[in-house]
Amino acid sequence: MSTVVEEEEKETGRVEAFSDGVFAIAITLLVLEIPVTHPDTVPHGKHLADVVLQQGPNFAAYLVSFVTILVMWLNHHSIFQMVRRIDRLFLVLNGFLLLLVTFINYPTALVANFIATDDERFAAAFYAGTFVIIAVIYNLLWWRAAGGMRLIGKRVPAEQVARMTRQYQFGPILYLLTFALAFVNAWASLALNGALALYFAFTGQIERTA
Amino acid sequence: MSTVVEEEEKETGRVEAFSDGVFAIAITLLVLEIPVTHPDTVPHGKHLADVVLQQGPNFAAYLVSFVTILVMWLNHHSIFQMVRRIDRLFLVLNGFLLLLVTFINYPTALVANFIATDDERFAAAFYAGTFVIIAVIYNLLWWRAAGGMRLIGKRVPAEQVARMTRQYQFGPILYLLTFALAFVNAWASLALNGALALYFAFTGQIERTA
Amino acid sequence: MSTVVEEEEKETGRVEAFSDGVFAIAITLLVLEIPVTHPDTVPHGKHLADVVLQQGPNFAAYLVSFVTILVMWLNHHSIFQMVRRIDRLFLVLNGFLLLLVTFINYPTALVANFIATDDERFAAAFYAGTFVIIAVIYNLLWWRAAGGMRLIGKRVPAEQVARMTRQYQFGPILYLLTFALAFVNAWASLALNGALALYFAFTGQIERTA
Amino acid sequence: MSTVVEEEEKETGRVEAFSDGVFAIAITLLVLEIPVTHPDTVPHGKHLADVVLQQGPNFAAYLVSFVTILVMWLNHHSIFQMVRRIDRLFLVLNGFLLLLVTFINYPTALVANFIATDDERFAAAFYAGTFVIIAVIYNLLWWRAAGGMRLIGKRVPAEQVARMTRQYQFGPILYLLTFALAFVNAWASLALNGALALYFAFTGQIERTA
Repeated sequence: MSTVVEEEEKETGRVEAFSDGVFAIAITLLVLEIPVTHPDTVPHGKHLADVVLQQGPNFAAYLVSFVTILVMWLNHHSIFQMVRRIDRLFLVLNGFLLLLVTFINYPTALVANFIATDDERFAAAFYAGTFVIIAVIYNLLWWRAAGGMRLIGKRVPAEQVARMTRQYQFGPILYLLTFALAFVNAWASLALNGALALYFAFTGQIERTA
Repeated sequence: MSTVVEEEEKETGRVEAFSDGVFAIAITLLVLEIPVTHPDTVPHGKHLADVVLQQGPNFAAYLVSFVTILVMWLNHHSIFQMVRRIDRLFLVLNGFLLLLVTFINYPTALVANFIATDDERFAAAFYAGTFVIIAVIYNLLWWRAAGGMRLIGKRVPAEQVARMTRQYQFGPILYLLTFALAFVNAWASLALNGALALYFAFTGQIERTA
Repeated sequence: MSTVVEEEEKETGRVEAFSDGVFAIAITLLVLEIPVTHPDTVPHGKHLADVVLQQGPNFAAYLVSFVTILVMWLNHHSIFQMVRRIDRLFLVLNGFLLLLVTFINYPTALVANFIATDDERFAAAFYAGTFVIIAVIYNLLWWRAAGGMRLIGKRVPAEQVARMTRQYQFGPILYLLTFALAFVNAWASLALNGALALYFAFTGQIERTA
Repeated sequence: MSTVVEEEEKETGRVEAFSDGVFAIAITLLVLEIPVTHPDTVPHGKHLADVVLQQGPNFAAYLVSFVTILVMWLNHHSIFQMVRRIDRLFLVLNGFLLLLVTFINYPTALVANFIATDDERFAAAFYAGTFVIIAVIYNLLWWRAAGGMRLIGKRVPAEQVARMTRQYQFGPILYLLTFALAFVNAWASLALNGALALYFAFTGQIERTA
């Protein structure tokens, strides 16, 4: 009996470690998308300080994406603290989640580059849209684990699972809102994305398999 | 007796962790090869949406390579769950495997850039050819571990090893097919690569050292 | 009782592993900001050796940032050896710390590019300013953990915690000095940053939860 | 007594994991230095296959650096299997080792870009010179650990330590040879670097703390 439990934990452990690695790398690569000014590209009569100030959208997008990925990692952490077994579909869903987490780099750079142009709404919608899909996949992943307590550890209380299920349902709705907002105002959509990430960072529960 | 087993597990553990790191980084770097449009490079009269749509091949190649590396990681995982000892040749073969896994970035970018040009068949063949070599190295790695049960844990049933050996033999053959197909039609070869990765992702067994 | 302790260690362990991953990636990405010369960009009549020598500021900034991040990692390590529990605010502060650690890449490239130009003081101040903020966040993180021994392990002696608190207070002051110095002389500020990092690397204590 | 041993292993473990991360990232980033051709940069009348073939030096440098870093990781692994304690100087030396391991990316790109130009000998010497310094630091690191059995585990036989000491002395001499050879013939120096790495990969011992 005890051996089976250890076996399960080990199995989860390596998927967790691999996912952690992907999260850590994705969050660190974000900085590479902030273009570094060279002396040759500073316009005549301008100072470096002006150029750096003009990169405001890059810093804003960097900040929002960083905090969002950090919150996703915390969520991923919470899920895996309750999950003790894995199955094929759970692994595949986790894989698609990682696919989109690594992809965030691209819409982040897009929104940073196009926020003050005619194309800013498309860029902001593309950015928010990525988060909508991620929120949906998080729900699918959680549904696969928690449906009928399929992959959940035996000592995890049912009410804790139910609370998590309720929390997760808001994700897609809130991100659909930022998606819709992008077509009205790109800045407002980006700001709402940031506010959501900060809100989740400060209020999200640290789940424990007490 | 018990000490020897622990010693073996520790030895495998660090190679596994290092390999996991390389897989995680290689899979995350893929996104850097999708070029991010700048406002200056959007052609006059075109919108960002048009440019992003034209990047279809980049997204397709990204998706196929991501899922392929993910499946490779799952396979690597399966091998190391049965392996308990390591020897020098096994380490060297694992090293060459990692070499090619990190290399995938390059043919992925090549096929994304050249798929709609005169050179598309060369690019697709180069891409599929990389996977042929990887599939061959996987077989060598597995043969080194499983031949005469050389590095396999004592509690792993022989039939499980035999099933794995049979499965692995199909890899090089299937990828040779995508390689040959590249000379006929680059898109078809890329699509078959993607189909294979998805098929393996959904059907591959999660081996356990039960 | 024993179960609770294990639970706590596991919790800390994953935040630690994720942070380590971010530190390791941030420190390794630094090299990508040293531009690699191509034969086409070597000025006529010059040799590669001349161009590489002219990249002195890039190497210097690389060295200073590398040693600084390494020292930060050692500090992070020391904190987590005393911390046994985590709470939400501690996690958020740790997240902001990682945000700034990954960001170091950008001011490093800035200072390397602009050190011999009219903008060198702004670049050096931006660089040193990043370290001021990081030093402040380290103090906040430590205050959150050590205030009232909130998250500290029960077996950690109070004097060890007090010594750490005293040491950490110097960080923001010393980096404010390098920040102020940047407005006088960019090179001197960079050199002081390097000297501080080397000093901390050689003298910092290896804290143990003896 | 038993507690002390556990404490020591934990201490070594985190430095080991951090170093492993840096090795894994450095080895994976190498591929980013192979420039990916775009349809616009293929010269008129030429095919992609020609361009890829002309990138031979990039592939060769990639291969040599990859195998060299892999061998360094194996050596690092061997050292840490015998080391049970760490001290400040050991940590600093390990830090400088990691600094140079992450740096390898730069001379690799340099040698790939300049191998068929007038500057090829400088590039090859810079490349080999980096390995000379790394080999010296490996000796310092090992001397710090093994001198008077300072940081070595109690169960490691003295003859195993002595054998390692003898092996390590050859490193700097052999790499000084590739350094000197670079001034005569860049290709020969690169080839010798590759041969050394392959030789070490196939013959190096897998040290165990039996």
